[in-house]
Amino acid sequence: MSQLENAIAILLQTFDDYAGKEGKKDTLTKREVKTLLEKELLLQEAKNPGEVDKLMKKLDLDGDSEVDFNEFMTLVGCLACAIHFSTI
Amino acid sequence: MSQLENAIAILLQTFDDYAGKEGKKDTLTKREVKTLLEKELLLQEAKNPGEVDKLMKKLDLDGDSEVDFNEFMTLVGCLACAIHFSTI
Repeated sequence: MSQLENAIAILLQTFDDYAGKEGKKDTLTKREVKTLLEKELLLQEAKNPGEVDKLMKKLDLDGDSEVDFNEFMTLVGCLACAIHFSTI
Repeated sequence: MSQLENAIAILLQTFDDYAGKEGKKDTLTKREVKTLLEKELLLQEAKNPGEVDKLMKKLDLDGDSEVDFNEFMTLVGCLACAIHFSTI
């Protein structure tokens, strides 16, 4: 498996790991987003419900109060771009 | 490092590895895109210049004949979504 294939496989698995905890298996509930932020990104802000609500609003592009894989990949893209452009 | 951090780190490294081969260090030339497609995604179509041109047009959102990190992440997002939604 190449680097790129490996990274994509990890993203797919990460999403499935958290989306599978409760509710629909193919979306992240607010609680699953909170857990993902705390565990995967060590974001202390995720302990603040208000902050999670704010991020959910930004991620939840279709307004269904959940984060689907498309919306998750938007988060990943934003994070990766923020890191990339902060290091050049 | 968490799963998600690891995946993002791999994406950052993969882009840098290929963008660094020629031209500007922070963009992929057409040749670098071709090499990336062949090596990272084992795309046989990448041997066909016409196919690479087609993909470049789709990826090169700002029309500068190169693929920057934003545009690379769009490719990654599309690939990941195609795989995710084909497996549910």
